[in-house]
Amino acid sequence: MTISQETGGVGPRHFGPGGPVPQPHRVAVSLNRLEPQTGTAFLLRAGQRLVVVDPFGEQVSDFFAVMADDRDEWMSSGRTIDYANSTAVTTGSVLYSNRSRPMATVVEDTCGHHDLLLTPCSQQTFDLLYPEFEGAYHPSCFENLSTAMAEFGIDPDRISTTLNIFMNVWNERGGELHIDPPTSRAGERFVLRAEADLVVGLTACSAEKSNNGVCKPIDYAVED
Amino acid sequence: MTISQETGGVGPRHFGPGGPVPQPHRVAVSLNRLEPQTGTAFLLRAGQRLVVVDPFGEQVSDFFAVMADDRDEWMSSGRTIDYANSTAVTTGSVLYSNRSRPMATVVEDTCGHHDLLLTPCSQQTFDLLYPEFEGAYHPSCFENLSTAMAEFGIDPDRISTTLNIFMNVWNERGGELHIDPPTSRAGERFVLRAEADLVVGLTACSAEKSNNGVCKPIDYAVED
Repeated sequence: MTISQETGGVGPRHFGPGGPVPQPHRVAVSLNRLEPQTGTAFLLRAGQRLVVVDPFGEQVSDFFAVMADDRDEWMSSGRTIDYANSTAVTTGSVLYSNRSRPMATVVEDTCGHHDLLLTPCSQQTFDLLYPEFEGAYHPSCFENLSTAMAEFGIDPDRISTTLNIFMNVWNERGGELHIDPPTSRAGERFVLRAEADLVVGLTACSAEKSNNGVCKPIDYAVED
Repeated sequence: MTISQETGGVGPRHFGPGGPVPQPHRVAVSLNRLEPQTGTAFLLRAGQRLVVVDPFGEQVSDFFAVMADDRDEWMSSGRTIDYANSTAVTTGSVLYSNRSRPMATVVEDTCGHHDLLLTPCSQQTFDLLYPEFEGAYHPSCFENLSTAMAEFGIDPDRISTTLNIFMNVWNERGGELHIDPPTSRAGERFVLRAEADLVVGLTACSAEKSNNGVCKPIDYAVED
Protein backbone atom coordinates (compact mmCIF):
# COMPACT_ATOMS: atom_id res chain seq x y z
CA MET A 1 0.00 0.00 0.00
CA THR A 2 1.32 3.47 -0.79
CA ILE A 3 0.07 6.78 0.49
CA SER A 4 0.84 10.26 -0.79
CA GLN A 5 1.98 12.76 1.76
CA GLU A 6 3.51 16.20 1.71
CA THR A 7 6.77 15.88 3.59
CA GLY A 8 7.82 18.56 5.96
CA GLY A 9 6.26 17.95 9.33
CA VAL A 10 3.27 18.95 11.32
CA GLY A 11 2.48 22.54 12.15
CA PRO A 12 5.15 24.45 14.01
CA ARG A 13 6.61 21.49 15.92
CA HIS A 14 10.19 20.91 14.81
CA PHE A 15 12.81 20.11 17.41
CA GLY A 16 16.57 20.08 17.40
CA PRO A 17 19.27 20.26 20.04
CA GLY A 18 18.77 23.99 20.38
CA GLY A 19 14.98 24.08 20.15
CA PRO A 20 12.84 24.74 17.08
CA VAL A 21 14.57 24.20 13.75
CA PRO A 22 13.72 25.44 10.23
CA GLN A 23 11.06 23.64 8.21
CA PRO A 24 12.60 21.42 5.53
CA HIS A 25 11.90 21.70 1.84
CA ARG A 26 8.50 20.12 1.12
CA VAL A 27 8.46 17.36 -1.49
CA ALA A 28 5.68 14.90 -2.27
CA VAL A 29 6.67 11.29 -1.55
CA SER A 30 4.90 7.95 -1.71
CA LEU A 31 4.72 6.13 1.59
CA ASN A 32 4.61 2.41 2.20
CA ARG A 33 2.35 1.23 4.99
CA LEU A 34 3.30 -1.27 7.70
CA GLU A 35 0.04 -2.71 8.96
CA PRO A 36 -0.36 -2.95 12.76
CA GLN A 37 2.03 -5.41 14.46
CA THR A 38 4.10 -6.04 11.33
CA GLY A 39 7.63 -5.30 10.17
CA THR A 40 9.89 -5.18 7.16
CA ALA A 41 13.55 -5.04 6.15
CA PHE A 42 15.29 -3.36 3.22
CA LEU A 43 18.57 -1.95 2.01
CA LEU A 44 19.22 1.72 2.70
CA ARG A 45 22.17 3.01 0.72
CA ALA A 46 24.58 5.66 2.01
CA GLY A 47 23.00 9.06 1.40
CA GLN A 48 19.44 7.75 1.12
CA ARG A 49 16.86 8.95 3.60
CA LEU A 50 14.40 6.84 5.53
CA VAL A 51 11.19 8.74 6.27
CA VAL A 52 9.09 7.25 9.09
CA VAL A 53 5.60 8.69 9.60
CA ASP A 54 3.09 7.97 12.36
CA PRO A 55 -0.12 8.23 10.30
CA PHE A 56 -2.65 8.15 13.15
CA GLY A 57 -0.54 9.27 16.13
CA GLU A 58 0.66 7.56 19.33
CA GLN A 59 2.36 4.68 17.47
CA VAL A 60 5.91 3.42 18.01
CA SER A 61 8.20 2.11 15.24
CA ASP A 62 11.26 0.04 16.16
CA PHE A 63 14.34 0.63 14.00
CA PHE A 64 17.45 -1.54 13.81
CA ALA A 65 20.31 -1.62 11.33
CA VAL A 66 23.44 -3.56 10.47
CA MET A 67 26.17 -2.67 8.03
CA ALA A 68 25.39 -4.10 4.59
CA ASP A 69 29.07 -4.76 3.89
CA ASP A 70 29.72 -6.59 7.18
CA ARG A 71 26.68 -7.93 8.96
CA ASP A 72 28.63 -8.54 12.18
CA GLU A 73 28.69 -4.74 12.64
CA TRP A 74 25.46 -3.55 14.24
CA MET A 75 23.73 -0.47 15.58
CA SER A 76 24.89 0.09 19.15
CA SER A 77 22.61 2.02 21.46
CA GLY A 78 25.45 2.11 23.98
CA ARG A 79 28.00 3.70 21.63
CA THR A 80 25.32 6.12 20.43
CA ILE A 81 24.53 7.17 24.00
CA ASP A 82 28.23 7.37 24.89
CA TYR A 83 29.18 9.70 22.09
CA ALA A 84 26.12 11.95 22.47
CA ASN A 85 26.45 11.95 26.26
CA SER A 86 22.67 11.60 26.20
CA THR A 87 19.94 9.01 25.88
CA ALA A 88 17.89 11.46 23.81
CA VAL A 89 17.69 11.15 20.02
CA THR A 90 16.56 14.03 17.81
CA THR A 91 17.65 16.09 14.81
CA GLY A 92 21.44 15.93 14.51
CA SER A 93 21.84 12.72 16.50
CA VAL A 94 24.22 10.17 14.97
CA LEU A 95 23.57 6.44 15.38
CA TYR A 96 26.87 4.57 15.83
CA SER A 97 27.81 0.94 15.24
CA ASN A 98 29.45 -1.29 17.81
CA ARG A 99 32.72 -0.46 16.02
CA SER A 100 32.04 3.26 16.51
CA ARG A 101 31.32 4.02 12.86
CA PRO A 102 28.46 6.43 12.05
CA MET A 103 25.54 4.51 10.55
CA ALA A 104 22.82 7.17 10.25
CA THR A 105 22.05 10.76 11.17
CA VAL A 106 18.66 12.11 12.21
CA VAL A 107 17.86 14.91 9.77
CA GLU A 108 14.27 15.67 10.73
CA ASP A 109 12.19 15.06 13.85
CA THR A 110 8.80 16.65 14.35
CA CYS A 111 8.05 14.71 17.54
CA GLY A 112 11.02 14.97 19.90
CA HIS A 113 10.45 11.85 22.01
CA HIS A 114 12.10 8.53 21.08
CA ASP A 115 13.77 5.75 23.02
CA LEU A 116 17.25 4.18 22.93
CA LEU A 117 17.06 2.18 26.17
CA LEU A 118 14.66 -0.67 25.51
CA THR A 119 14.75 -3.79 23.40
CA PRO A 120 12.17 -4.71 20.75
CA CYS A 121 9.18 -6.39 22.37
CA SER A 122 9.46 -10.18 22.11
CA GLN A 123 7.36 -13.17 23.09
CA GLN A 124 9.26 -13.17 26.39
CA THR A 125 8.38 -9.49 26.89
CA PHE A 126 4.71 -10.43 26.81
CA ASP A 127 5.30 -13.53 28.94
CA LEU A 128 7.11 -11.50 31.62
CA LEU A 129 5.44 -8.09 31.50
CA TYR A 130 1.88 -8.80 30.27
CA PRO A 131 0.50 -11.48 32.65
CA GLU A 132 -2.98 -10.85 31.23
CA PHE A 133 -1.95 -12.73 28.06
CA GLU A 134 -1.11 -15.83 30.15
CA GLY A 135 1.85 -16.81 27.99
CA ALA A 136 -0.18 -17.02 24.76
CA TYR A 137 1.48 -16.23 21.44
CA HIS A 138 1.65 -12.49 20.74
CA PRO A 139 3.04 -10.72 17.67
CA SER A 140 6.22 -8.86 18.55
CA CYS A 141 8.74 -6.45 17.09
CA PHE A 142 11.52 -8.96 17.75
CA GLU A 143 9.75 -11.67 15.75
CA ASN A 144 8.94 -9.19 12.98
CA LEU A 145 12.50 -7.85 12.83
CA SER A 146 13.99 -11.36 13.00
CA THR A 147 11.79 -12.69 10.21
CA ALA A 148 12.31 -9.71 7.92
CA MET A 149 16.06 -9.31 8.53
CA ALA A 150 16.66 -13.06 8.10
CA GLU A 151 15.96 -12.50 4.41
CA PHE A 152 19.16 -10.43 4.38
CA GLY A 153 21.16 -13.07 6.24
CA ILE A 154 20.93 -11.38 9.64
CA ASP A 155 21.02 -13.76 12.61
CA PRO A 156 18.34 -12.96 15.24
CA ASP A 157 21.10 -12.90 17.89
CA ARG A 158 22.52 -9.83 16.15
CA ILE A 159 19.39 -7.81 16.94
CA SER A 160 20.20 -5.67 19.96
CA THR A 161 18.58 -2.65 21.57
CA THR A 162 16.56 -0.80 18.93
CA LEU A 163 15.90 2.86 18.30
CA ASN A 164 12.24 3.02 19.24
CA ILE A 165 10.93 5.89 17.17
CA PHE A 166 8.03 7.81 18.80
CA MET A 167 8.38 5.73 22.02
CA ASN A 168 8.00 7.99 25.03
CA VAL A 169 10.28 6.74 27.78
CA TRP A 170 11.92 8.67 30.58
CA ASN A 171 13.62 7.58 33.72
CA GLU A 172 13.81 9.00 37.20
CA ARG A 173 17.22 9.84 38.59
CA GLY A 174 17.02 6.64 40.63
CA GLY A 175 16.61 4.66 37.40
CA GLU A 176 12.90 3.78 37.37
CA LEU A 177 11.44 3.92 33.87
CA HIS A 178 8.19 5.48 32.76
CA ILE A 179 6.68 4.45 29.43
CA ASP A 180 4.11 7.11 28.65
CA PRO A 181 1.81 7.34 25.60
CA PRO A 182 3.72 8.56 22.55
CA THR A 183 3.56 12.30 22.06
CA SER A 184 3.41 11.81 18.28
CA ARG A 185 0.32 13.19 16.57
CA ALA A 186 -1.08 12.05 13.22
CA GLY A 187 1.45 12.83 10.48
CA GLU A 188 4.44 13.25 12.78
CA ARG A 189 7.74 12.49 10.99
CA PHE A 190 11.20 11.17 11.79
CA VAL A 191 13.83 11.09 9.05
CA LEU A 192 17.24 9.39 9.04
CA ARG A 193 20.02 9.76 6.47
CA ALA A 194 22.18 6.66 6.02
CA GLU A 195 25.91 7.31 6.51
CA ALA A 196 26.82 3.86 5.15
CA ASP A 197 25.05 1.09 3.24
CA LEU A 198 22.67 -0.48 5.75
CA VAL A 199 20.30 -3.38 6.13
CA VAL A 200 17.41 -1.81 8.01
CA GLY A 201 14.64 -3.48 10.00
CA LEU A 202 11.52 -1.44 10.80
CA THR A 203 8.26 -2.26 12.57
CA ALA A 204 4.87 -0.98 13.57
CA CYS A 205 5.30 -1.86 17.24
CA SER A 206 3.21 -4.75 18.60
CA ALA A 207 3.16 -3.84 22.31
CA GLU A 208 -0.13 -2.38 23.47
CA LYS A 209 1.34 -0.59 26.51
CA SER A 210 3.83 1.34 24.38
CA ASN A 211 1.13 2.62 21.99
CA ASN A 212 -1.51 3.92 24.40
CA GLY A 213 -3.46 0.66 24.18
CA VAL A 214 -3.98 0.31 20.43
CA CYS A 215 -1.46 -0.99 17.86
CA LYS A 216 -1.70 1.08 14.67
CA PRO A 217 0.12 1.27 11.30
CA ILE A 218 3.41 3.01 10.50
CA ASP A 219 4.17 4.58 7.11
CA TYR A 220 7.67 4.85 5.65
CA ALA A 221 9.52 5.75 2.49
CA VAL A 222 13.08 5.58 1.18
CA GLU A 223 14.14 8.77 -0.62
CA ASP A 224 17.24 9.20 -2.77
CA MET B 1 48.46 -11.50 43.15
CA THR B 2 46.03 -12.54 45.86
CA ILE B 3 44.80 -10.52 48.79
CA SER B 4 42.98 -11.72 51.88
CA GLN B 5 39.83 -9.87 52.78
CA GLU B 6 36.95 -10.43 55.11
CA THR B 7 33.85 -10.48 52.92
CA GLY B 8 30.77 -8.73 54.07
CA GLY B 9 30.88 -5.13 53.07
CA VAL B 10 31.89 -1.81 54.48
CA GLY B 11 30.36 -0.40 57.63
CA PRO B 12 26.62 0.01 57.59
CA ARG B 13 26.19 0.65 53.85
CA HIS B 14 24.18 -2.16 52.27
CA PHE B 15 21.56 -1.33 49.71
CA GLY B 16 18.71 -3.23 48.17
CA PRO B 17 15.49 -2.31 46.41
CA GLY B 18 13.87 -1.49 49.75
CA GLY B 19 16.81 0.26 51.36
CA PRO B 20 19.32 -1.24 53.81
CA VAL B 21 19.61 -5.03 53.68
CA PRO B 22 21.03 -7.50 56.23
CA GLN B 23 24.78 -8.05 56.40
CA PRO B 24 25.80 -11.30 54.71
CA HIS B 25 27.70 -14.09 56.46
CA ARG B 26 31.36 -13.12 56.67
CA VAL B 27 33.83 -15.62 55.17
CA ALA B 28 37.51 -15.12 54.42
CA VAL B 29 38.30 -15.26 50.67
CA SER B 30 41.40 -14.78 48.58
CA LEU B 31 41.11 -12.01 46.04
CA ASN B 32 42.83 -11.75 42.70
CA ARG B 33 44.01 -8.32 41.67
CA LEU B 34 43.47 -6.68 38.29
CA GLU B 35 46.18 -4.08 37.95
CA PRO B 36 45.09 -0.63 36.68
CA GLN B 37 43.82 -0.60 33.08
CA THR B 38 43.82 -4.39 32.71
CA GLY B 39 41.20 -7.11 32.30
CA THR B 40 40.64 -10.83 32.49
CA ALA B 41 38.19 -13.55 31.47
CA PHE B 42 37.19 -16.80 33.15
CA LEU B 43 34.44 -19.38 33.43
CA LEU B 44 31.82 -18.81 36.11
CA ARG B 45 29.71 -21.90 36.67
CA ALA B 46 26.01 -21.77 37.56
CA GLY B 47 25.73 -21.21 41.30
CA GLN B 48 29.22 -19.76 41.69
CA ARG B 49 29.59 -16.20 42.94
CA LEU B 50 31.77 -13.50 41.53
CA VAL B 51 32.96 -11.08 44.20
CA VAL B 52 34.18 -7.71 42.86
CA VAL B 53 35.91 -5.37 45.31
CA ASP B 54 37.08 -1.80 44.82
CA PRO B 55 40.23 -1.90 46.97
CA PHE B 56 41.04 1.81 47.00
CA GLY B 57 37.68 3.39 46.17
CA GLU B 58 36.35 5.38 43.18
CA GLN B 59 37.26 2.68 40.62
CA VAL B 60 34.96 1.23 37.96
CA SER B 61 34.99 -2.42 36.81
CA ASP B 62 33.33 -3.36 33.51
CA PHE B 63 31.55 -6.74 33.49
CA PHE B 64 30.36 -8.66 30.44
CA ALA B 65 29.21 -12.25 30.01
CA VAL B 66 28.16 -14.73 27.36
CA MET B 67 26.61 -18.13 27.84
CA ALA B 68 29.31 -20.81 28.03
CA ASP B 69 27.10 -23.34 26.21
CA ASP B 70 26.22 -20.99 23.32
CA ARG B 71 28.49 -18.05 22.80
CA ASP B 72 26.02 -16.33 20.49
CA GLU B 73 23.87 -15.63 23.56
CA TRP B 74 25.10 -12.55 25.36
CA MET B 75 24.32 -10.25 28.27
CA SER B 76 21.70 -7.72 27.13
CA SER B 77 21.55 -4.41 28.96
CA GLY B 78 18.31 -3.69 27.10
CA ARG B 79 16.51 -6.87 28.19
CA THR B 80 17.82 -6.33 31.72
CA ILE B 81 16.46 -2.76 31.78
CA ASP B 82 13.17 -3.87 30.20
CA TYR B 83 12.39 -6.57 32.72
CA ALA B 84 13.43 -4.49 35.74
CA ASN B 85 11.65 -1.41 34.39
CA SER B 86 14.74 0.43 35.62
CA THR B 87 18.26 1.33 34.59
CA ALA B 88 19.42 0.81 38.18
CA VAL B 89 21.25 -2.38 39.23
CA THR B 90 21.55 -3.45 42.85
CA THR B 91 20.88 -6.41 45.16
CA GLY B 92 18.19 -8.59 43.60
CA SER B 93 18.71 -7.37 40.04
CA VAL B 94 18.79 -10.10 37.38
CA LEU B 95 21.01 -9.75 34.32
CA TYR B 96 19.26 -11.19 31.26
CA SER B 97 20.61 -12.49 27.96
CA ASN B 98 19.47 -11.29 24.55
CA ARG B 99 17.27 -14.42 24.54
CA SER B 100 15.71 -13.33 27.85
CA ARG B 101 17.33 -16.05 29.96
CA PRO B 102 18.63 -15.09 33.43
CA MET B 103 22.43 -15.04 33.43
CA ALA B 104 23.29 -13.69 36.90
CA THR B 105 21.67 -12.20 40.00
CA VAL B 106 23.17 -9.49 42.17
CA VAL B 107 23.34 -10.93 45.68
CA GLU B 108 25.31 -8.22 47.48
CA ASP B 109 25.95 -4.54 46.76
CA THR B 110 27.53 -2.26 49.32
CA CYS B 111 27.80 0.71 46.93
CA GLY B 112 24.44 1.22 45.21
CA HIS B 113 25.63 3.06 42.08
CA HIS B 114 26.41 1.15 38.88
CA ASP B 115 25.77 1.72 35.18
CA LEU B 116 23.94 -0.24 32.48
CA LEU B 117 23.80 2.46 29.80
CA LEU B 118 27.35 2.87 28.54
CA THR B 119 29.72 0.74 26.51
CA PRO B 120 33.21 -0.29 27.60
CA CYS B 121 35.69 2.47 26.83
CA SER B 122 37.49 1.78 23.56
CA GLN B 123 40.22 3.44 21.52
CA GLN B 124 37.44 5.31 19.71
CA THR B 125 36.05 6.49 23.05
CA PHE B 126 39.36 8.20 23.73
CA ASP B 127 39.63 9.48 20.16
CA LEU B 128 36.15 11.03 20.32
CA LEU B 129 35.75 12.06 23.94
CA TYR B 130 39.32 12.77 25.16
CA PRO B 131 40.77 15.26 22.65
CA GLU B 132 43.66 15.86 25.03
CA PHE B 133 45.12 12.47 24.03
CA GLU B 134 45.21 13.58 20.37
CA GLY B 135 44.32 10.13 19.03
CA ALA B 136 47.26 8.37 20.70
CA TYR B 137 46.92 4.74 21.78
CA HIS B 138 45.18 4.38 25.13
CA PRO B 139 44.45 1.20 27.09
CA SER B 140 40.73 0.49 27.13
CA CYS B 141 38.18 -1.83 28.66
CA PHE B 142 37.07 -2.90 25.19
CA GLU B 143 40.58 -3.95 24.21
CA ASN B 144 41.06 -5.70 27.55
CA LEU B 145 37.73 -7.52 27.32
CA SER B 146 38.30 -8.42 23.66
CA THR B 147 41.78 -9.82 24.30
CA ALA B 148 40.79 -11.80 27.38
CA MET B 149 37.49 -13.14 26.03
CA ALA B 150 39.09 -14.13 22.71
CA GLU B 151 40.83 -16.89 24.65
CA PHE B 152 37.36 -18.36 25.15
CA GLY B 153 36.41 -17.99 21.51
CA ILE B 154 34.36 -14.82 21.94
CA ASP B 155 34.30 -12.52 18.91
CA PRO B 156 34.89 -8.84 19.82
CA ASP B 157 31.68 -7.96 17.91
CA ARG B 158 29.74 -9.92 20.55
CA ILE B 159 30.80 -7.48 23.28
CA SER B 160 27.89 -5.12 23.81
CA THR B 161 26.95 -2.65 26.55
CA THR B 162 28.61 -3.74 29.77
CA LEU B 163 27.51 -3.64 33.38
CA ASN B 164 29.84 -0.97 34.69
CA ILE B 165 30.22 -1.83 38.35
CA PHE B 166 30.80 1.21 40.62
CA MET B 167 30.29 3.60 37.65
CA ASN B 168 28.23 6.57 38.78
CA VAL B 169 26.01 7.67 35.91
CA TRP B 170 22.67 9.40 36.02
CA ASN B 171 20.65 11.15 33.39
CA GLU B 172 18.41 14.14 33.39
CA ARG B 173 14.82 13.69 32.32
CA GLY B 174 15.75 15.25 28.99
CA GLY B 175 18.39 12.54 28.50
CA GLU B 176 21.68 14.32 29.23
CA LEU B 177 24.11 12.06 31.08
CA HIS B 178 26.25 12.89 34.06
CA ILE B 179 29.26 10.71 34.86
CA ASP B 180 30.19 11.58 38.42
CA PRO B 181 33.05 10.16 40.51
CA PRO B 182 32.20 6.67 41.77
CA THR B 183 30.63 6.64 45.22
CA SER B 184 32.51 3.43 46.07
CA ARG B 185 34.85 3.67 49.04
CA ALA B 186 37.85 1.39 49.71
CA GLY B 187 36.63 -2.17 50.24
CA GLU B 188 33.21 -1.67 48.67
CA ARG B 189 31.79 -4.95 47.26
CA PHE B 190 29.50 -6.15 44.49
CA VAL B 191 28.64 -9.84 44.26
CA LEU B 192 26.89 -11.71 41.42
CA ARG B 193 25.62 -15.29 41.48
CA ALA B 194 25.72 -17.04 38.09
CA GLU B 195 22.35 -18.46 37.00
CA ALA B 196 23.94 -20.37 34.10
CA ASP B 197 27.47 -21.35 33.05
CA LEU B 198 29.07 -18.14 31.85
CA VAL B 199 32.20 -16.84 30.19
CA VAL B 200 32.86 -13.62 32.08
CA GLY B 201 35.02 -10.67 31.13
CA LEU B 202 36.05 -8.22 33.87
CA THR B 203 38.23 -5.11 33.88
CA ALA B 204 39.77 -2.44 36.02
CA CYS B 205 38.42 0.44 33.91
CA SER B 206 40.92 2.41 31.84
CA ALA B 207 39.01 5.70 31.44
CA GLU B 208 40.32 8.48 33.64
CA LYS B 209 37.08 10.49 33.61
CA SER B 210 35.05 7.56 34.95
CA ASN B 211 37.41 7.01 37.90
CA ASN B 212 37.82 10.52 39.30
CA GLY B 213 41.03 11.04 37.35
CA VAL B 214 43.11 8.04 38.48
CA CYS B 215 42.88 4.45 37.17
CA LYS B 216 43.30 2.03 40.07
CA PRO B 217 43.17 -1.77 40.59
CA ILE B 218 40.12 -3.97 41.02
CA ASP B 219 40.07 -7.14 43.15
CA TYR B 220 37.87 -10.14 42.47
CA ALA B 221 37.26 -13.73 43.51
CA VAL B 222 35.15 -16.66 42.36
CA GLU B 223 33.45 -18.48 45.24
CA ASP B 224 31.73 -21.87 45.07
